[in-house]
This record gives sequence, structure tokens and C-alpha cells, in this order.
Amino acid sequence: MAIAEITKQLLAAKKEKGLTFEDLEKVVGRDETWVASVIYRQASADMEEATKLVTALGLPESVAEELTVPPLKGSLDPQIPTDPLIYRFYEIMQVYGMPIKAVVHEKFGDGIMSAIDFSIEVEKVEDPKGDRVQIIMCGKFLPYKKW
Amino acid sequence: MAIAEITKQLLAAKKEKGLTFEDLEKVVGRDETWVASVIYRQASADMEEATKLVTALGLPESVAEELTVPPLKGSLDPQIPTDPLIYRFYEIMQVYGMPIKAVVHEKFGDGIMSAIDFSIEVEKVEDPKGDRVQIIMCGKFLPYKKW
Amino acid sequence: MAIAEITKQLLAAKKEKGLTFEDLEKVVGRDETWVASVIYRQASADMEEATKLVTALGLPESVAEELTVPPLKGSLDPQIPTDPLIYRFYEIMQVYGMPIKAVVHEKFGDGIMSAIDFSIEVEKVEDPKGDRVQIIMCGKFLPYKKW
Amino acid sequence: MAIAEITKQLLAAKKEKGLTFEDLEKVVGRDETWVASVIYRQASADMEEATKLVTALGLPESVAEELTVPPLKGSLDPQIPTDPLIYRFYEIMQVYGMPIKAVVHEKFGDGIMSAIDFSIEVEKVEDPKGDRVQIIMCGKFLPYKKW
Amino acid sequence: MAIAEITKQLLAAKKEKGLTFEDLEKVVGRDETWVASVIYRQASADMEEATKLVTALGLPESVAEELTVPPLKGSLDPQIPTDPLIYRFYEIMQVYGMPIKAVVHEKFGDGIMSAIDFSIEVEKVEDPKGDRVQIIMCGKFLPYKKW
Amino acid sequence: MAIAEITKQLLAAKKEKGLTFEDLEKVVGRDETWVASVIYRQASADMEEATKLVTALGLPESVAEELTVPPLKGSLDPQIPTDPLIYRFYEIMQVYGMPIKAVVHEKFGDGIMSAIDFSIEVEKVEDPKGDRVQIIMCGKFLPYKKW
Amino acid sequence: MAIAEITKQLLAAKKEKGLTFEDLEKVVGRDETWVASVIYRQASADMEEATKLVTALGLPESVAEELTVPPLKGSLDPQIPTDPLIYRFYEIMQVYGMPIKAVVHEKFGDGIMSAIDFSIEVEKVEDPKGDRVQIIMCGKFLPYKKW
Amino acid sequence: MAIAEITKQLLAAKKEKGLTFEDLEKVVGRDETWVASVIYRQASADMEEATKLVTALGLPESVAEELTVPPLKGSLDPQIPTDPLIYRFYEIMQVYGMPIKAVVHEKFGDGIMSAIDFSIEVEKVEDPKGDRVQIIMCGKFLPYKKW
Amino acid sequence: MAIAEITKQLLAAKKEKGLTFEDLEKVVGRDETWVASVIYRQASADMEEATKLVTALGLPESVAEELTVPPLKGSLDPQIPTDPLIYRFYEIMQVYGMPIKAVVHEKFGDGIMSAIDFSIEVEKVEDPKGDRVQIIMCGKFLPYKKW
Amino acid sequence: MAIAEITKQLLAAKKEKGLTFEDLEKVVGRDETWVASVIYRQASADMEEATKLVTALGLPESVAEELTVPPLKGSLDPQIPTDPLIYRFYEIMQVYGMPIKAVVHEKFGDGIMSAIDFSIEVEKVEDPKGDRVQIIMCGKFLPYKKW
Repeated sequence: MAIAEITKQLLAAKKEKGLTFEDLEKVVGRDETWVASVIYRQASADMEEATKLVTALGLPESVAEELTVPPLKGSLDPQIPTDPLIYRFYEIMQVYGMPIKAVVHEKFGDGIMSAIDFSIEVEKVEDPKGDRVQIIMCGKFLPYKKW
Repeated sequence: MAIAEITKQLLAAKKEKGLTFEDLEKVVGRDETWVASVIYRQASADMEEATKLVTALGLPESVAEELTVPPLKGSLDPQIPTDPLIYRFYEIMQVYGMPIKAVVHEKFGDGIMSAIDFSIEVEKVEDPKGDRVQIIMCGKFLPYKKW
Repeated sequence: MAIAEITKQLLAAKKEKGLTFEDLEKVVGRDETWVASVIYRQASADMEEATKLVTALGLPESVAEELTVPPLKGSLDPQIPTDPLIYRFYEIMQVYGMPIKAVVHEKFGDGIMSAIDFSIEVEKVEDPKGDRVQIIMCGKFLPYKKW
Repeated sequence: MAIAEITKQLLAAKKEKGLTFEDLEKVVGRDETWVASVIYRQASADMEEATKLVTALGLPESVAEELTVPPLKGSLDPQIPTDPLIYRFYEIMQVYGMPIKAVVHEKFGDGIMSAIDFSIEVEKVEDPKGDRVQIIMCGKFLPYKKW
Repeated sequence: MAIAEITKQLLAAKKEKGLTFEDLEKVVGRDETWVASVIYRQASADMEEATKLVTALGLPESVAEELTVPPLKGSLDPQIPTDPLIYRFYEIMQVYGMPIKAVVHEKFGDGIMSAIDFSIEVEKVEDPKGDRVQIIMCGKFLPYKKW
Repeated sequence: MAIAEITKQLLAAKKEKGLTFEDLEKVVGRDETWVASVIYRQASADMEEATKLVTALGLPESVAEELTVPPLKGSLDPQIPTDPLIYRFYEIMQVYGMPIKAVVHEKFGDGIMSAIDFSIEVEKVEDPKGDRVQIIMCGKFLPYKKW
Repeated sequence: MAIAEITKQLLAAKKEKGLTFEDLEKVVGRDETWVASVIYRQASADMEEATKLVTALGLPESVAEELTVPPLKGSLDPQIPTDPLIYRFYEIMQVYGMPIKAVVHEKFGDGIMSAIDFSIEVEKVEDPKGDRVQIIMCGKFLPYKKW
Repeated sequence: MAIAEITKQLLAAKKEKGLTFEDLEKVVGRDETWVASVIYRQASADMEEATKLVTALGLPESVAEELTVPPLKGSLDPQIPTDPLIYRFYEIMQVYGMPIKAVVHEKFGDGIMSAIDFSIEVEKVEDPKGDRVQIIMCGKFLPYKKW
Repeated sequence: MAIAEITKQLLAAKKEKGLTFEDLEKVVGRDETWVASVIYRQASADMEEATKLVTALGLPESVAEELTVPPLKGSLDPQIPTDPLIYRFYEIMQVYGMPIKAVVHEKFGDGIMSAIDFSIEVEKVEDPKGDRVQIIMCGKFLPYKKW
Repeated sequence: MAIAEITKQLLAAKKEKGLTFEDLEKVVGRDETWVASVIYRQASADMEEATKLVTALGLPESVAEELTVPPLKGSLDPQIPTDPLIYRFYEIMQVYGMPIKAVVHEKFGDGIMSAIDFSIEVEKVEDPKGDRVQIIMCGKFLPYKKW
């Protein structure tokens, strides 16, 4: 996995400025996970969003422009990931993929949850027995077209 | 991918009885996605839960016992899935895996979201522009131990 | 690659009746490629469509019902296909994938062509230098959501 | 996936000049997707076509010459692609590959659609419910030779 | 690798009758390698050829009909072959693939040798230092189309 | 796939001198495909052959010496090739591998065609319906030894 | 496998100073295997631990800071390892994986041994017939949550 | 992954008799994990051990004999495992493989821990914050031979 | 890996008769490893050898005939083997492959050791520190042909 | 496959000095294949051996020190090798792996041939019909431990 040059530059600037993703959420007016996706070049911003982000990080205008180009997506090699945090999502798909498929088809019919008209949020749920990570995915249901 | 014989038997009985996973949620007293996971042999029930499920489906006691054995998990081949609905979860991990990792580490430090002390729910969110699938994952944050 | 039992049964009946996919297009009232997709268990029909198809093929009602269940899709192993006709589509994606990506993004912005809200037709274009196969794909453009 | 140096140079020049692929279609006298294929080094131009292209982009003659050499084709790694736009073509082959094979053989007999004597066009179909991407592939049918 | 049932039946009949592929070449009026391809279900015969073959082998008419259906081709798993005789062709492609590509492009321009409008013959060349296997491939050159 | 530095140097010199592989065949006194194999570092020349080649290309003596070292062979990654011209050889092995195996064993007994004591030639066969590429492989038959 | 630049720098400094991992265990106040994990960027230290380590090695403060960032884990390519020492762990999982699974489930019920709330120690056990390597893994048992 | 027929038979008998692996440890006079390995056909017993085991399970003598044959080892497919419990061992190797290698070489020199002259034990460590799984591996250090 | 039916039949008969491979070496007049290769359908015998073998094992004539047919070779799946004994040969190739290549080329020039005109013997070398397995491979050197 | 920098340096020096591996065998007092293994960083020398080697090659002391560090072994990518000379060893394992396993188990019982307490020698056997390569492997038999 190669992290893009621009991503390294943005992360370095973010570190230097001491800004969190939550701070950038307020700057850009978009959810922090989406902002992180722009920084990792998995999502493309419009010129206004990109400029706000780049200005907050103290980087030149040319960086903003690059963030508006649709990227070649997929931040991992096309294989099973080795990083334990990311692997757990692969494991969830392995263990719960078929059950989810069954429940979605029962509730909605034949089709899929879109991964494009889609949002994902990461929340911290405080818990005395140990805090929990909550991830909320929400995608449009797309029924299969017939023709 | 080979679906277990017991899964086929349970799904056939469920179809014949005309029961939905939501009906079974009420019978067993557990979330429908978890019940679907038991049926697909990705989760193991205790004897009481298994008996309730098996009785509702009109199947013999011996089936209940089998559902209490910890299964060999992983309902897919150890590869990239081809079913479009399941693939979208792989794609989400490809596109949003690194951004999520960045946000989680910033909020929690070094560690992972558990996929074991973990729940997953599937909801239908009605929307005039097209209904949406909402998936809520909630797992305990596990910090890396030092020794 | 394992062809489903029901597919074998449907193809055998179709052969015995001497019906073409074009004949079935008229019977079902849907495009022949879509009908072929139902037969290969890659698409699911509603009860009315399934009954028309199954009746024309002289098969029992229970077959129709099975055709309405959303299938586990992907008619090939999750690998590079060996059949030369099917491989050519893989090759087209290898050779023209990046150029298409560039043109689509220029015309539409960041997003994808849906493979769900999608149709595909196969036509024969007669040509004195050798007939040509024309394949028309038409899928809704889905722009990436921001949140 | 490594994008060729010459491709980066051509794309940078195209961006600087503010030219679209459609503009280049007029300059070169070839379809925009084919021109994009030349730029991505998946197709080779003749000297006249290459010169027109390179002149419009304000690049030196030596670049034109390089575009006439038959390239090592395949713009992706020999694996399942991770970019969602390109992946959808892989998914289409997975889901509709066998049905298309059945229809083509029924219409044409044993053989394939050529991916060499072949063209591909990308069109925007406007639609009030959301614009659609139309992709038209047209390849010579090649019957299997006997000997 | 699974050898088709019909192939086993044909090979068993061929063995029982004591016929060589060369004998079958005379019966069918086609080259022995092509006849072997029909037997391994990699090529499809017309009804007349299939009947000649099946009659010579003393098998029923229904077998002939099956040999006219275009098969799902690829007689090996989609991987690197382990049989030493077949592996050598993979090795030849590894070692001589790039040199052949260079020579073909120099002689013909950008394009490929067709594997469909194509024949292949196997000859024995007697030699006092050890007999030699000669394999002659002959395929139509297909230049890349521009559009 | 990484092309060796020395290969790039030799091809650049060949282009600058305007020499074809056929011209180099006359210079070295070896078939053009073999010469191409030396240039792609898949075959090793002796000092005399290497010197002739290098002198014709106007390169220094040290290059000749390097061409005499047995190379690490295999000009492609150990996978299924993506270049359409080279892929066709993989496809030929997939489709005709088992038939060839059957014919070779019938003609020669158990053993293989050597890929070492082996030659390969590429010829252009002119044909009014379109020129054809002819490839002639000739390798010693090696019977399996018993001990 | 690419070893991180910082790892090379730390190992070089450790060699120059003539320090063993056991020496560093005393400096940092953590087990030597964990210290090695920090050096290989598989575990992240807090600022105090990192400073102790970096000071002992005579490296600048900025190196310490880098060691506190949660790394992208997985020190090998996502494949079967080739190094004989590391491969043996893969082999142990192959040979003893299922037996361990059976014993753990019998002792604990359905769940896993955490690899996060986890420690691993390497000991030398002296033995006249040849010293032995003892590896002690200790991870929290995590029972599968029901919901 | 296919579990051997004899393993299924032994596990069924064990279940019917209500015996734990710990009970079998006492019967056979060997550690429970090793006994589990024999049952999963990853280790071979001598005739005496096998007879004790088989008698306790109420199975015929012929089963005992089969347990003395050295098996084809490797209880998983030669890939990355999907079962979460077993996967954690793969992850441990990914994350801690290189650090362990470094520590072992520093303590012992160049060589490996044998996976053959090797034992593995699974213990339950009670802990008020949640019980822990302890796994103790102990293998002979084998230094690389020079010759 | 699927062991051929005939192999299972031969091994069962060998076991019943209480014969070792060394006994069969005397019966057939060929080395025991080669005899084992015939039994595992990796080598083909002539009719005389096959009859001797089959008679000694008390099996019918038809079995002998089958042993004379050149088999589809490769007794393992085309992957890295999981059995520890067989894996060690893969490891030897990994660790010593390049050094052997260097020594062979220095002694013989460019070419290979034949795996066809080849024999392999397994010997027990008694040693007070532990017996040793000696494997002697002997294959004809095949120099690369030039043409 | 990336050859280590130090290996390139050693091979260049060896070439310049005109020394063979056999010459180095005399210098170091170890078999030439083992010396080649040290040069390819697959084996580690002690300081005395390394100094003899490095001095003979006219290289600085620091190179000697590096040769004493246990390397990350495995000189090939973890895949099926493409070089024909090295591939033959993979083929030998494919074809003769199971037969060898059977013979070893019959002679020694359950266990393996060590690849660590192991030596390998390459000899030239002169033969009027063509010289032969003889490879002698000799490894300690390691019986599986029970516990």
C-alpha cells in the first residue's frame, strides 16, 4: 500500500497545526470521516471545500485544486488487509455477510445498499465497562432494474 | 461457498412456516440479524435460545443441540466476494478503511474495534427519494496491551 | 464454476421445447438477456414473470417460486475467467478501464455507472465484412454523496 | 498500478490547456474514448494522429513518436480492480457473463466478440430521474476456425 | 481440473475400439488435434462431423448432439498448470513472450495473433539424436481497430 | 513487470540505428526471435555473438559481456498476463493444452516437449483475407526416465 | 516486505551502541519482545517510553515522537511467509489450529483469544539435548456478544 | 476445508460419551492438545495410545490402526484462515513475526524454533477482569548447519 | 488434493499384503521411489512392470493396464504445500534456489537440470546423533539451444 | 525478486577477481553451495569465515560483519518461480512429493527431513550421452514429538 504524496503532505500539515479531524469538520462543514476520506484521496471535494481545508492547513492553492480531481479509489492492495483494525471489517463481512444479505433481501427485496450514495460516521460511545466504537453506515437501497 | 446442511434445513422450515427474521426476533428475544447469524452457523446459541428457535420452526430437538456448538466461522471463501450486496462491504473497507483508521486512532488511541464484543443491526430508513439501508455496528474499543 | 441445478433444468426444458431466448423475450415481456439472467439465477423475477417463463417451458409451479428468491450472484469463480468469450470482457476492462474512467469523470464528475439500476442488451449488427456483436450497457450515473 | 510517465505528462498538458477529451476528438478526428486510450498508452496512434494530438497539447515531437509504438497493454494489475467505477465492469461480467455467452452463441454460433476489431463509446443519456451512462461496445464476431 | 463426463465416455470408447487420433482424423476429415479438442469439449463440431465421430466410436446419436453445443472453454483451472508437458507452454510464454511480441509488432504493427481464427498442429520430426515435437500455430493477424 | 535496464539500452540503440530484428539476424547469424530473446535477457549469447550484436548497435564492449551471463529468466510476473498479444498464448494453453497432451502421448509415449532444447520462429504468411502469424515451435521429445 | 526507514535507523543505532533487546527492556521498563515490536513499528509507545528508548540509542527527539503514532500494522506481505523461522508459526497454525480451536471452545465456550489485549514472551530454556525456544502467548478470552 | 471422516466419527463418539479432551488426556497419558491433534489427524499415535483412545470412545480396533498412519498434515486450506479464533494466530505472526525473529536470533544465533520437536499447551488463566487464554509453545532450537 | 481412486486401491492392497516399497523394488526391478511414483500415478509403467506390481498386490489385470497410461501429473494443488514434510522441499528451493542456480551455471553454462531424464533416490543414513534422510537427485544437464 | 545490494557487490567482486565458487570453497573451507548461500544472504557466516571470503574478494571489513547477521531468508517471491532452472525443483516436488513422503514415512515413521540441520551439494557427473547434474540433500530426520 502506497500512501499518496499529497496525503502525507496534508497529514504532516495537520499534525503541525495540531488540528483534529473534528476541528476540520467545523472548518469544511462536512463530517470528519468524509474529510479524512478527502485527505486520503478516496473522495473528491469541490473547489470551495478544498480551499477551506487547504487554507486551514496553511498549504498552497495548487493542493486544493488537486483535491477536486476524482481519484483512483481503493486505499489498500486488492487483497485481504493485514492491519488488525481494518481486518476486523473484513472479518465482519466474512461472519455477518450472509446474515445481512438475508435480512436486507427480506426487508427490501432483491437489490443492494449503495456504497456511493452512502455515508459513514464514526462515534465514540462512552461505557463504564470500556468505551465502544459505533459505526453508522447509511446507503440508498438500489433495487435491481428489469428491462 | 458451501452453505451448511443445517442452514438449508432451517431456511426451508422458515419459508414453509412463512416466518420472517423479525418474527423470529420476537420468538428468540434476540435481534433479527443475530438470529440470522445463528441460522447461517456464524454464531452459537445457548440451549434455551436454540430450543425456542427450533420449536417455532417445527424442527426436532437434535437440531437445537447442534446450534449450540461453536462453528467454524467465515461464511464466504477466503477471497474477494462476488455477490454485489456483500461486495459493497469489501468496497467500503477499500475506500473508507484508512480514513476510519485515522479517525478511530485520533478518538481512542492505538487499538481496534472488537468484532467479537460486537453487535450489528440492519434498519430500513424510509425516504421519499428512495428508502435507505442503515447498518449500525457497535464494538468495544480494545486498546493494545503493553507488557 | 458450478451451474445451479435449476439452471440445468431450465436449459434442458428450453432445448426440448426448441425455444430461443428471443422467443422467451416475447413470452415474458422482458429483454432476452435479462431472461437469460433469470435462467442463470443472476436476476430474480416476480411471480407473474416467473410463471409465464415456467409455463412456456412446461415446468412445475415450484420452479417459478424458486426464481423469485434473490440469488447469491456471481456466475463465475472470483478469479480471471478462462472462457475466451467471457475473458474478452475482462480484457476490455484491462485495456479500456482507465480511459473510460477518465471520460466518465470528465462528462459526469466523481461517481460511477450503476451495475444495479442497469440494463444490458446484445444485438447482431450485420456487416458484409463479418457480422458484429453490439453490446449496449446503460446504467444510472450515481454521484458520490458527501455528508 | 503505475501510470506511465508519458501519460502523466499528457494529462498535465491537457489540464493546463483546459482541453476536454471531446475537444481532442475534434483535433485528432477519432472518438474521445480512443483518444483517451492513446493517452493512457493502451492504443497506438499513427504519426499523423500523434502529431495532431501532441501539437494541440503543446508538447515536443519526440512525445508523438513514442505514441506510435505498440504498448504493453493492460492498465491495471492482473487482479480484481479496487476502483469502484472500474470494478462495476468486473461485476457486470460476473453477473451477466454467462447470460451474454448464452445469447451470443444462440445468435451467432460458437465464437467470440473480438476485443481487437472493436470500438467502445461512452455517452451521456439525460434523464429527469438522474442522467445515465451509456456504453456501446461493438466488436466483430469471430467464429472458431476448424482445420 | 474436472474432465467432462462426455470426454471420459469418448476416450473410453476410443480406447476400446483401439483407434488413434490419426484414425479419427481420417474419419472426420479434420486435423487430429482439432478432433482431440472436440473430444475434450474445447471445440464444437457441426452435426455431420459429430455423427461421423460418434458412429466410429460406436456411441449413441445423443452424444453427437451434445458435441455441437458451444462449450464453456478452458480445460485447466485458471492457474499455473502443474502437469510438466502443459507447463512447458506456460514457460515458453514466460521466456519467449516478450521477444515474440517485439517481433510480431515489428512485422505486423499493433495487433494480435487470433486464437479463434487459429489452427494448431502437432507433428513428429524424426531425428537420430532424439525425435522432436513440432507444433505449428497459425492465426490471423488482427490489427487494433481505431474509431 | 520490470524491463531490465540493459534491454532498454539495447532497444533504444536499435531504434536510433533504425535496425529491425531481421537485420540483426543477418548480423549475428541467429534467428531474429532468438536475437530478440537475448535482447530481452531471456537467452545468453557467447562472446562472439554478443560482440557482433553490440557493435552493430554502437554500444560499448561491457554490454556484450553482460549478455553472456545466464539470466534469471521469466519476462513476466508469475501470473496470468494482461497484454492481449501475450495472453492469447495462455488462452491457447487453456483451450488446447489437454488435446495437445493427448496427441503427444499417443505419438511419443509418456514424456514432454523440451522448452530448453527448443526453437521458436515467427513467420508472416500473406493471405488475401488477412495476413496470418505463423509460429513454429520445435523441441526435443524427452521420455520420462525410469530407474 | 519493506522494512520502515525508522526501523533501519533504530536497528543501526542499537548495533552501534552494542545494546541487546534485553538491555532495552531494562531501559524502557517493558518486555524485550514488546520493545522489538515498537522498533519494528508494530506497536506504539507513549512519549515517555519512546524518549527513554531513543535517548538510550542516541537518536534525536523527533524519532521518539514518530514512535507514538499508531502504525499501519502487519510486518509481512499478506501472504504465506518465506522466512523459515517465521514460516514455522504459519505451519503451527496449519497443523495445530483446529485442535487448539477445539480445546479453547471446550474450556471457554464460543469466542476467541484476543490478539490486542495480548502479550507474547520469548524465553530460552536450556537443555543438554539442545536448548529450546519457549514462547508464551497470553490473551484475554473474548466471548461472542449476543444482542 | 474438509474435516476427515475419521475425525467426525471420533468427535461424535466423544460427544456421545460426554468426554472432554481433559478426560482423554488422563486416558491416553498425553496432553489434551496433542490428543486433539491425533483426533484431527494432524499427529499420529502409536498402537498403544490409539487403542486406549479408541476404547474409551467405544469405537472398533480398525479405527485405532488408522490413527497410527502418518497423515497428510495441514488442517486448513493453504490460505489465510477465515475463522476468527484461528485468524488471530495469523495476525500474531503478521504483527509480532519480525520482532520475535529479532529476539530469537539475538538469543540463539541463526536458526529456527522447530515445529516438529515441539509441544503446545493451552491453559485457562483465571482473572477477575476476564479470564485469559495462555498458550505455551516449546520447540527445540535448530541452528543452521554449515557444510 | 485428491488422491486418485487407483492409488487408494493400490495402497490398501499393499497394506493388506504387508509389503514395503523396498519389497516392491525387488518385485518390479525398479527403485522404490519410482515404484511409489507409479502407485501415486505420477509415472507410467510399461505393461510388464505394471503386471509384476499388480500381481504381487493381488489385484486384477485391468489395474495394470491403467498404470501404463501417461497420467495428468502434479500430485499437489498448484500452490504452496501445507504438509510439513513436503513443504521443506519448497523451503529448500526458496533458500537454496538462487545459490544452486549460480553454481550450476558456473559448472555447466546456461541451461537446466532435466526433471524428466531424471531419477531421485531416498536413503537412510544412520547416525548416532540422529539418523539422516539423504535424497539424491540426478538429472541430465540440458543446455539452451540457439537457432 | 530483489537481489540484495550486498549480493550484487560480492558477485561483481568475484567476477572481477575471476574466482569461481570452487575457488572460494578452498578459501573459506566450506562447500561451494554453502558459500554461494552466504553470498546470496540465505546463510550467515561467522566472523572468521566472512573475513576470509571478503578478503579474497578484496572488499572492506564492514562487508564481512554484515554477512554474520541472520538474514530474512527466502530468495524468491512467495510464489511459483518463473526461472526454468529453479522451477524444475518445484516440479519435482509436485511430481515426486507424495511418493517421497510415502517412502520416508515407511523408512523412518512420522516426521520430516530437516531443512535446517541440512546440507546440499551440487556435482557434475560426466556422461558420454550428456553430462548430468547431481544434487545430494542430506538432512536430519526429526520425529514428531509427543507430549
